[in-house]
This record gives sequence, C-alpha cells and structure tokens, in this order.
Amino acid sequence: MSFESAAACEQAFYRAFQDADVTSMMAVWAPIGEVLCVHPMGHALVTREQIRASWLEIFAAPVEQRINFELVSEKRGETLCIRTVVENFSIPGSGEQFAPILATNIYWRGDGGWYLITHHASPARNQPAPAEPDPEQTRH
Amino acid sequence: MSFESAAACEQAFYRAFQDADVTSMMAVWAPIGEVLCVHPMGHALVTREQIRASWLEIFAAPVEQRINFELVSEKRGETLCIRTVVENFSIPGSGEQFAPILATNIYWRGDGGWYLITHHASPARNQPAPAEPDPEQTRH
Repeated sequence: MSFESAAACEQAFYRAFQDADVTSMMAVWAPIGEVLCVHPMGHALVTREQIRASWLEIFAAPVEQRINFELVSEKRGETLCIRTVVENFSIPGSGEQFAPILATNIYWRGDGGWYLITHHASPARNQPAPAEPDPEQTRH
Repeated sequence: MSFESAAACEQAFYRAFQDADVTSMMAVWAPIGEVLCVHPMGHALVTREQIRASWLEIFAAPVEQRINFELVSEKRGETLCIRTVVENFSIPGSGEQFAPILATNIYWRGDGGWYLITHHASPARNQPAPAEPDPEQTRH
C-alpha cells in the first residue's frame, strides 16, 4: 500500500497507531530501503522485523486511546518529505493529561507513492500544554 | 558558511557543540527557510533566535566534554540528507558513563552548499552501551 502524499501516509500511520492495527501500521512503512524507528526513550530500530515487533508490543496493552497530532514543521524535497508533529494522547472519558510526544516523521516517494521511512519520537515534558478552552469558564 | 557535504556539516556541528562555540554552531544552520531544533526532553524550537538562545544556555555550563557520534542511518535525496546518529558524551579523565542520545539531523543543500535545518535529539536510555575495550583487561 502507498499514499498520494506524505500527509495521507501520516494520517494512515496515526490511524493504525490509534486502532492498534499492526497490519495497517506496517503497510505505511516503505517495503524496500532503509527504515528507522525510535520510540520515546527507545533505541534505534533499523529493520522492518524490529519495527513490527515493537508495535506488536505497544499494541499488546489494551488501552483505548485517542491520538491527535499537530504539524509543527514540514520540509519537502523531490523524493523526501519531513514532518515534525506534536502527538497528544488521551483516553476517552478520562481527564488524565499525558505528556506530549514530539515526532519527526520522514516520508519517501517511491514508484508507487509515498511511504514512511523514519519515525523518531521523543518525550517533550517541557512542551507548553496547548491552551484548551474550558466550557465552564466562558466569559459571557 | 556552508559545507560541501552533509557529513562535513555534521562534523562542524559536533565540533561547535564540543567547543561550546555558539558562533560556529549557528554557522552550520541554514540562514534561510524553516529550521527546527529539539534538545533531549525539550520542546520544538523553530526560530534561529530560539535555537541560538538554547545553545547559549547549554554552553553556559563550563563542562569540558568529548562528543563522539556514530552514524546509524543515512538517507539522501537531491536537496535533503537525513542522518541519524548516536551521540556519546564523556568527560576527559572521568570514568563516568552518560546515557547516549539519539539525534536525527537533517541537512539541506542550498545554493552555497549544505546546511543543517533540523536537529531532533532524544535520550535513549534503553540503548545498549557500546562495548569499550578496557586496557586493564587485555587477555595476553
């Protein structure tokens, strides 16, 4: 499977992440060439098998979570696209706040379209929390 | 200042880092276009002024340190080059071990040569420590 744009590939990546669907997750990764995946505080995984195993481990914990991501920066080349995003995790019905994650995602355009080739994610504990409107505190 | 290759730019980046030289450090960053810098556990810095201020803060601590970096992965496009490295820090004369850092460094080829446009660094506490030969324990 491939995608018409890096952004579409990224959507599929986070959908697979949220759905804990390892088949969909691995479908966004480039089938050939070098790949690299760094989970927060983890080391560098450089083969598809290592990457697949890491996602299986993450998906083994049965947590129903929502993942929103916000684009911080994008750079586009002919065959490479780099998108750095802030990932925000939440559990529906829970008010619990999780520290955001910063991820640099790199996409490569092969013959069939765009694929993910690098996901480097890291904790961002100093990230200012996004301002969220509080419906209880509207000033009218 | 610019560099003939992404690798040469990276050498200059780590030399400036080790020398705590903010002028040399800022000379490796692209003078135009978007830039992004994430220090370990830090948030995304997206202007040259933020980036410069962050290095000034890091360099303010007077620590004589050695920085070695090992290339984990490289991807090259026409105008972009992505290098993920493991950074190892040590203090000369000290046996102290520091946790390695993983950094994804992204270089861009402008008219004048190669420049750094992204440095995303994160702690890698699960990284296996590199095996270092111990001169006290040679088996001869």
